[in-house]
Amino acid sequence: MTELESRATKKGLIKEITAVSNQHIKDIRALERRKVRNQTGQFMAEGLQLVAFALEAGWDADILVYAKNIKSHELVQQVAAKVYARGGLILEVSEQVLSKLTHRDNPQHVIGVFRQRYGKLTDLASDLEAAGGDMVVAMEGVKDPGNLGTSIRTSDAVGASALLLIGETTDPFSLEAVRATMGSIFHVPLYRATREEFLSWRKSWPGDIVGTHLKGAVDYRSVKPKDPLMVMMGNEQSGLPDEFAESCDHLVKIPMDGRAESLNLAVSTGITLFRLREGKLGL
Amino acid sequence: MTELESRATKKGLIKEITAVSNQHIKDIRALERRKVRNQTGQFMAEGLQLVAFALEAGWDADILVYAKNIKSHELVQQVAAKVYARGGLILEVSEQVLSKLTHRDNPQHVIGVFRQRYGKLTDLASDLEAAGGDMVVAMEGVKDPGNLGTSIRTSDAVGASALLLIGETTDPFSLEAVRATMGSIFHVPLYRATREEFLSWRKSWPGDIVGTHLKGAVDYRSVKPKDPLMVMMGNEQSGLPDEFAESCDHLVKIPMDGRAESLNLAVSTGITLFRLREGKLGL
Repeated sequence: MTELESRATKKGLIKEITAVSNQHIKDIRALERRKVRNQTGQFMAEGLQLVAFALEAGWDADILVYAKNIKSHELVQQVAAKVYARGGLILEVSEQVLSKLTHRDNPQHVIGVFRQRYGKLTDLASDLEAAGGDMVVAMEGVKDPGNLGTSIRTSDAVGASALLLIGETTDPFSLEAVRATMGSIFHVPLYRATREEFLSWRKSWPGDIVGTHLKGAVDYRSVKPKDPLMVMMGNEQSGLPDEFAESCDHLVKIPMDGRAESLNLAVSTGITLFRLREGKLGL
Repeated sequence: MTELESRATKKGLIKEITAVSNQHIKDIRALERRKVRNQTGQFMAEGLQLVAFALEAGWDADILVYAKNIKSHELVQQVAAKVYARGGLILEVSEQVLSKLTHRDNPQHVIGVFRQRYGKLTDLASDLEAAGGDMVVAMEGVKDPGNLGTSIRTSDAVGASALLLIGETTDPFSLEAVRATMGSIFHVPLYRATREEFLSWRKSWPGDIVGTHLKGAVDYRSVKPKDPLMVMMGNEQSGLPDEFAESCDHLVKIPMDGRAESLNLAVSTGITLFRLREGKLGL
């Protein structure tokens, strides 16, 4: 019986845990490490609201952890009932155990363990069409988890239908990145590609790609990209590498007026996405 | 003899420190605490580039700390010579001592201690005029040091001439906020006001105030504010309080298209500033 079948036929399990040394707790803590996340394909989301968002968006929790002293909270009960009904493991833990699971000053009272999802690069265009979407964000080599998480949140807000990670990037499923998405990690489908995979796949993209680059046009309105639009951002240190800039149909840049040499990546991603979206929103 | 006179007449002092327990090192470490920063009026900037920016922008370092093993580095020597010439204290320390001063995985090899600067609220309009500026950013109640630091950086990039902090906010001179400014803390003059001070001073502002608010106009181009422009942002959780929104001449909002309920504050600040700047930049 596969795991999915097992989920379909049997109900979840509820366990009470007071020992920090419990194996489940150790396993969850280990998800702080990227290597372990890669091996298990799982990740952690902290906070009742975030876990509730996930379930609402159709993500099943493998494990739900909550502090025993808040089990009577109505939303906690709803969330627990959903996870239980879908065959997840429920851990009722002491506050002490919970505080071990996160390093924050104010530990969240609810934690969910979910399975990472990545779409297939070769399906990106058809997935987008099926979803009725017309905009995708691509980020090459993004290093900072806060910048990536925030950009996933911004992509959601601007109505982008997917985010493509190119090359070596920070892990979108790290605790810090997930936090920064404010729940948008459960809304915006993620795809990934090595630089080589991207460059050879690129020709098959049916629309235009607009990259941000110092050689780009300052007036975004002069750029009339063909749908579906892919917006490509370079990384924090060096921007878009030349070979990627050359693979773009259009290049744009944000006009700078002061003494700062550059903008924060999440900020420049936000400015670029909303400016390019402008036309479509009738502005 | 005042401290400034003393600076003008005598040269700096160089000390070598290998003990973590040294009082200078303890004093510098204590600057991580907001209370101590308030008491001493000092703050810390990490990194050779950042310290070099500060000196270039006319800020004197009270103390310069560097790892002994990089003292032959050319830029370190230039920076040290400047600090010494202006009467600062120079501490040559062991790597072990340096790593105690910051909590980062990759400790910076140079740290500068500077004096906080705030302009007077009642001078803001005349300071702006004297500087030939036409745009000021105001942030009410900003909580996150990364958001504040990043917004100072963005304000610099968009050519804003000052940033006004209103009400209870995070400290712009915290290590994390200073880091996020990427040096712009030394370029953008800061002002601060309690909510009450701001609301009673507000009438004297010669230009228009544009606030971001859910009740605002989506089309920024329909807004024609009178110079000098003050752009006012609310905080992360609740946006601009009603009494502040009512004190604005115009309200704008960023059009949202997806499922995210809101944008990160630093991102929405960036989008708003660059949109409002658009006209002036001829876009």
